[in-house]
Amino acid sequence: MAFGWIDEQAELRRRAGLRRSLRPRPADSPLLDLAGNDYLGLARHPEVTEGAALAARTWGAGATGSRLVSGTTELHAELERELAAFCGFEAALVFSSGYAANLAAVTALAPHGSLLVSDAGNHASLIDGCRLARGTTQVVAHADPEAVRKALGTYDGPAVAVCDTVFSVDGDAAPLPALARVCREHGAGLVVDDAHGFGVLGDGGRGAAHAAGLAGADDVVVTLTLSKSLGSQGGAVLGPARVIDHLVNAARTFIFDTGLAPAAAGAALAALRLLGREPQRAARARAVAARLHAGLTAAGLQAVRPDAAVVSVRAPSPEAAVRWAARCRAAGLAVGCFRPPSVPDGISRLRLTARADLSGEQIDHAVRVIGGSRPAAGETRP
Amino acid sequence: MAFGWIDEQAELRRRAGLRRSLRPRPADSPLLDLAGNDYLGLARHPEVTEGAALAARTWGAGATGSRLVSGTTELHAELERELAAFCGFEAALVFSSGYAANLAAVTALAPHGSLLVSDAGNHASLIDGCRLARGTTQVVAHADPEAVRKALGTYDGPAVAVCDTVFSVDGDAAPLPALARVCREHGAGLVVDDAHGFGVLGDGGRGAAHAAGLAGADDVVVTLTLSKSLGSQGGAVLGPARVIDHLVNAARTFIFDTGLAPAAAGAALAALRLLGREPQRAARARAVAARLHAGLTAAGLQAVRPDAAVVSVRAPSPEAAVRWAARCRAAGLAVGCFRPPSVPDGISRLRLTARADLSGEQIDHAVRVIGGSRPAAGETRP
Repeated sequence: MAFGWIDEQAELRRRAGLRRSLRPRPADSPLLDLAGNDYLGLARHPEVTEGAALAARTWGAGATGSRLVSGTTELHAELERELAAFCGFEAALVFSSGYAANLAAVTALAPHGSLLVSDAGNHASLIDGCRLARGTTQVVAHADPEAVRKALGTYDGPAVAVCDTVFSVDGDAAPLPALARVCREHGAGLVVDDAHGFGVLGDGGRGAAHAAGLAGADDVVVTLTLSKSLGSQGGAVLGPARVIDHLVNAARTFIFDTGLAPAAAGAALAALRLLGREPQRAARARAVAARLHAGLTAAGLQAVRPDAAVVSVRAPSPEAAVRWAARCRAAGLAVGCFRPPSVPDGISRLRLTARADLSGEQIDHAVRVIGGSRPAAGETRP
Repeated sequence: MAFGWIDEQAELRRRAGLRRSLRPRPADSPLLDLAGNDYLGLARHPEVTEGAALAARTWGAGATGSRLVSGTTELHAELERELAAFCGFEAALVFSSGYAANLAAVTALAPHGSLLVSDAGNHASLIDGCRLARGTTQVVAHADPEAVRKALGTYDGPAVAVCDTVFSVDGDAAPLPALARVCREHGAGLVVDDAHGFGVLGDGGRGAAHAAGLAGADDVVVTLTLSKSLGSQGGAVLGPARVIDHLVNAARTFIFDTGLAPAAAGAALAALRLLGREPQRAARARAVAARLHAGLTAAGLQAVRPDAAVVSVRAPSPEAAVRWAARCRAAGLAVGCFRPPSVPDGISRLRLTARADLSGEQIDHAVRVIGGSRPAAGETRP
């Protein structure tokens, strides 16, 4: 029977404690949210939601077509200009998702016969970009510039190194300055996904590349999302104008996708302007993460020191992680629960996100709940 | 230098008449739009734009995370229930784009060691899905069930046939009943992309699979977009509940992408309900396309008979197509201009889209403009 193999896979997943299901949330959830990626607390900010509403009324609910046909409005162009200027790049191009932006950047910037050097901890969208690209991919050790140097040294065609700036599972940062140096020595391009750095790192949230002095460099391309710090939906690629022009002409997820909805573009633009006026939100998100980490560590939990706004806490097994998250939820706290295949090393975790608008009291309460509901010694299987 | 090869590619593109650039449109464009995919004329319908605005205010500007973490709201669940019910399927899953929905369906439904049989005219997103899938892809002749039969006959592992229901460039329909028969004979699954059929074909716009008597079949999976007939943004996969549950657990573009923005979900839901109340919009879009085709053919142009709402007209060269579209634009008419690599056969075209809200007078005017601005005999190069 067609799709008969699905039931078997479902059963294996269930036995391994890896079954996932959707849990629709109400509009007025009473839970304290430490699960979402709304790092600056802007997704429900009235200026941002009004930006969405006004754009839908002015431009329509959809972009109506590919950005190359009918799907580019003056609103898209305005967002692209302001995003590029804010982050210090020559040009920007907006996509319907960060996933699409990553597929575009990686595939279009690795022509036939090129080498892609990919960090072992990269996000799925960068990995899929490498798989789709017409070059050869070499996966290198996590956050290791020497490994990148070694890989680039084996090759003399066009090459590009690809990595997250802040890795989404553990929240640790890539060594960008060293990576950029290694790439330059070899004439290779550097494509970095700043999904979890933009809005949180760098002067006023200008991102990890800006913080590393790489903004506007002619060999660096940054991708980011509009759905995390900007509280909206979509993705973007920032870089030299010639690179952006190349993407317009060659990136399949740009050419063959409907443009980003005006409401999402309008919300992102409103959030970007708000961040420009309130740059302290970026530092506040980092401070919340640091306080969360300090509290969890003091409580004896295995938490990774955050380089941005993600705080990761190890769990002894997938089942224990699920039960831990459920106990937090029962106590009024929403936390992320990451299990294989969403974790590169197979280790299950609670994934907590700091938000600029959390109070000290809320952070301390969260630490108490998470610490108080930790798995008992030896709690692994059902 | 990093990315040095880009300038060379740009020069080749320029010489071949294939350079693309973005043309931002104003909110109050005076052009008559025959370029967008807003087939039912709903993108700017007040009920739809208010659906977007209300959802942004109620749920926030963004979904804040993966659908598996914080990104599933009750609004998403409602949209999925109503989409599935409308089209006659057991379950539905909503994505941030149709591209993401296609990558998800194709990759997750072709496990390691399976055969994917892909129509030569398929959309880029289905092609990329096949490239990412862990199986082997066999590309077969366009709209040819016998070719699919032959491909499936060579294989006895899990297999899936993949095609558009209405091909986006020429607007011709796939022979779905015959394809389904061939797949069933071989126990293969059938995955069809109804981006250009949903809202236009079938009873009240229920889509091509519904029209072919395949809705709800346990071996058929349909993907569609929320950005064309529903005037919003996003994509969806419809199928048996076990298939949808499998996608929740296995599809990378579902698991690792931020959920669709509430505004896009709200707009799509409002448009779907409107279509339920005004089913004549689907037939009207088809009638507009037929009248457009008849007029163009009577004027001596080479137009493909439309099976849905897309009408394609051949141009003698990429340059001639660009100039033809520019003359239409100067005369107040926006038309699509498709050149390589957006056309599978390398033949440039004007691509016109019928909209349910076009009047007979507007259609006849469009025919006069397109006919009157046609390339002169022998007009090919600059």
